[in-house]
Amino acid sequence: MELLEICQRAKKVKYEAQILSTEVKNKALLHVADALVQRADFILEANQKDYDNGVSNGMHQGMLDRLKLDNKRIEAMAEGLREVVELEDPIGTEIEHFTRPNGLEISKVRVPFGVIGIIYESRPNVTADAFSLTFKSGNAVILKGGSDAINSNIAITKVIRDALTEESINPDVIQLIEDTDRSVTTSFMKMKEYVDVLIPRGSAGLIRAVVENSTIPVIETGTGNCHIYVDKDADLEKAIPIIINAKTQRIGVCNAAESLVVHKDIKDRFLPLFDAVMKEHKVEVRADEKAKEILTDSKSATEEDFGKEYLDYIISVKTVNDISEAIEHINRYNTGHSESIITENKEAAEKFLNEVDAACVYVNASTRFTDGFEFGFGAEIGISTQKLHARGPMGLRELTSYKYRIVGNGQIRG
Amino acid sequence: MELLEICQRAKKVKYEAQILSTEVKNKALLHVADALVQRADFILEANQKDYDNGVSNGMHQGMLDRLKLDNKRIEAMAEGLREVVELEDPIGTEIEHFTRPNGLEISKVRVPFGVIGIIYESRPNVTADAFSLTFKSGNAVILKGGSDAINSNIAITKVIRDALTEESINPDVIQLIEDTDRSVTTSFMKMKEYVDVLIPRGSAGLIRAVVENSTIPVIETGTGNCHIYVDKDADLEKAIPIIINAKTQRIGVCNAAESLVVHKDIKDRFLPLFDAVMKEHKVEVRADEKAKEILTDSKSATEEDFGKEYLDYIISVKTVNDISEAIEHINRYNTGHSESIITENKEAAEKFLNEVDAACVYVNASTRFTDGFEFGFGAEIGISTQKLHARGPMGLRELTSYKYRIVGNGQIRG
Repeated sequence: MELLEICQRAKKVKYEAQILSTEVKNKALLHVADALVQRADFILEANQKDYDNGVSNGMHQGMLDRLKLDNKRIEAMAEGLREVVELEDPIGTEIEHFTRPNGLEISKVRVPFGVIGIIYESRPNVTADAFSLTFKSGNAVILKGGSDAINSNIAITKVIRDALTEESINPDVIQLIEDTDRSVTTSFMKMKEYVDVLIPRGSAGLIRAVVENSTIPVIETGTGNCHIYVDKDADLEKAIPIIINAKTQRIGVCNAAESLVVHKDIKDRFLPLFDAVMKEHKVEVRADEKAKEILTDSKSATEEDFGKEYLDYIISVKTVNDISEAIEHINRYNTGHSESIITENKEAAEKFLNEVDAACVYVNASTRFTDGFEFGFGAEIGISTQKLHARGPMGLRELTSYKYRIVGNGQIRG
Repeated sequence: MELLEICQRAKKVKYEAQILSTEVKNKALLHVADALVQRADFILEANQKDYDNGVSNGMHQGMLDRLKLDNKRIEAMAEGLREVVELEDPIGTEIEHFTRPNGLEISKVRVPFGVIGIIYESRPNVTADAFSLTFKSGNAVILKGGSDAINSNIAITKVIRDALTEESINPDVIQLIEDTDRSVTTSFMKMKEYVDVLIPRGSAGLIRAVVENSTIPVIETGTGNCHIYVDKDADLEKAIPIIINAKTQRIGVCNAAESLVVHKDIKDRFLPLFDAVMKEHKVEVRADEKAKEILTDSKSATEEDFGKEYLDYIISVKTVNDISEAIEHINRYNTGHSESIITENKEAAEKFLNEVDAACVYVNASTRFTDGFEFGFGAEIGISTQKLHARGPMGLRELTSYKYRIVGNGQIRG
């Protein structure tokens, strides 16, 4: 199907999607979850093609692992859908209601965006995740996945659409752009007349390309150059486990720490401990001049290191003279994701919370908690690193807009 | 000053702006209001230059009127600032607060965007309006006004900055890009590293150019192709005053009606009355075939007419077979601004409220009420016609984002 036709169908179906009841949506999600499991063989066969292509094309092992599906992963996809059933439906909620002196009744109600576009890279489970969240929030979705997972995505989308049809729901609430030509992706980003919001999920390069080319409003997600600042008044018994957790619990995620910022007055006590645990966890340390006085066998950090989201067993170290310099350094290099201060000093904590410019600012905790489930919101479509619309974990509510409903009895403006 | 330096200064000052107390901001706003009146001669002298240039350049009378300042208009600008003092400061408000089972205290608090860019056309009063709203909401602002009003804008900005300096506030919270070269405007739209949000105010052409070129998140405002739909169950004693008001009370504003949609079953009763009042108000009518059976001396409406924001004494007329066709027509041609149904039928009203895709959807009232003051919000920066972040009138609260503050005591993720 042509891109234009896909967009036209999505714009048309959005009016049906927005008035589906919670019951109808939940029943359909459960049906889709069952269908994914029942038709696992069909999905796995398609996935095998992608995997074989990946092997032939020399895809590296990490990517192949992300691409590969098995029965357990399909069951996890289905379980993800069932969890979304449990989440509160945000649609139709009245956010505010007021009556004006002229008698106009104004009600601000939550409504779906309409059509959401999602551009993502090779993990095929995103296809089912993105469907569940956009569908439950009353939106139609157009998916543009990576070419590496195209067969898997076609199969998963087909299973979802078939199940929706059996539920008498127009299957165009989920459409996949099957044409993997790059020019189609660029054209998609210009379909402003049809698509209300575009969410890229993937590498910093993908997100940059979308921001630069899209005329559709974009929500940026998922780039995280996160810092842990160890203040002069830090409790080192908290600092050490937090830095280990934030750096090494999962290295490839956006809320992992990429940089340590340390106060000069504590560096002589803290850095030897830090050095030992980083060595123990096989983390490469790239330190500035002052830190290298202690971290004698670490590499030297360059300006580029401070701006880098490694997503690897590497961490940069910056020494600062005071908390103001720490905040300035973080606000210069961070990506607006998650930042943490380790301190027992209430004034320093308050200053850090107020002045650091990021979605999530922590005191004495790991940055790894920036996550929809950890916040108690449930599944998320991503972590927003911009300030427009939503910031931090984006769940169902963040996939909605609002409208004003105004009821009068003949009022005109004087 | 170079564009880059302006952006760097704004990024630096935003950390000061966001922690100014309400008292300090209000005192400064009152001081600026007084300064504008006290230094009216200085501003009027600069404005005279712009006016003379406008006359030499053959600017048409409507534009000259919008450009021209006098003591009364400066007093109105000052009054606008004083009104903003009365508005509630949104900054620092706690939106939500919850404790997680692991003891993390999560608080969602309202914060400024940081740096707001505003690109606007020739009305110089926007300079003071935009300052008052962005300043009160804790933001730094970079203004790029039209070249036609450059001398006025320089003078107004200088008066504001001088007054801020006297209040010991860093005057970089308001900066004006004085270079009127178009390429500078385009470069400004790419300053994503420094500017958090960009708001264009002006013609549909200006807004389109910003949407197409900006890498900074944009809030679209102010294009209004608004419809009045007269349903078969309309009370014509409400319909006639509403259509007169929506079309003619002020023709050049975004919430004025540009199109009448009429149900076929009421057209024979309604259109003769409509014809008479449009003639009385010297409004040119452009009607479809069926409506022309009654509106015999009107022009024929083309497809282009239905998509047009006239901002003039012109209205298009579309006849529909039922409410579904009315909604479909409106959702096809509207700009997501304001739409109204005239009906006594509760079911029709509910359907229209639910299914019309616009910021403000009315029953039995004029679209002219879409306005911050009419909604009781006070001064506004514009009417958002997009769905991301804010929709409809954008006051102080809509010029803010939020952040999560998370306080722990050593929590790490398991």
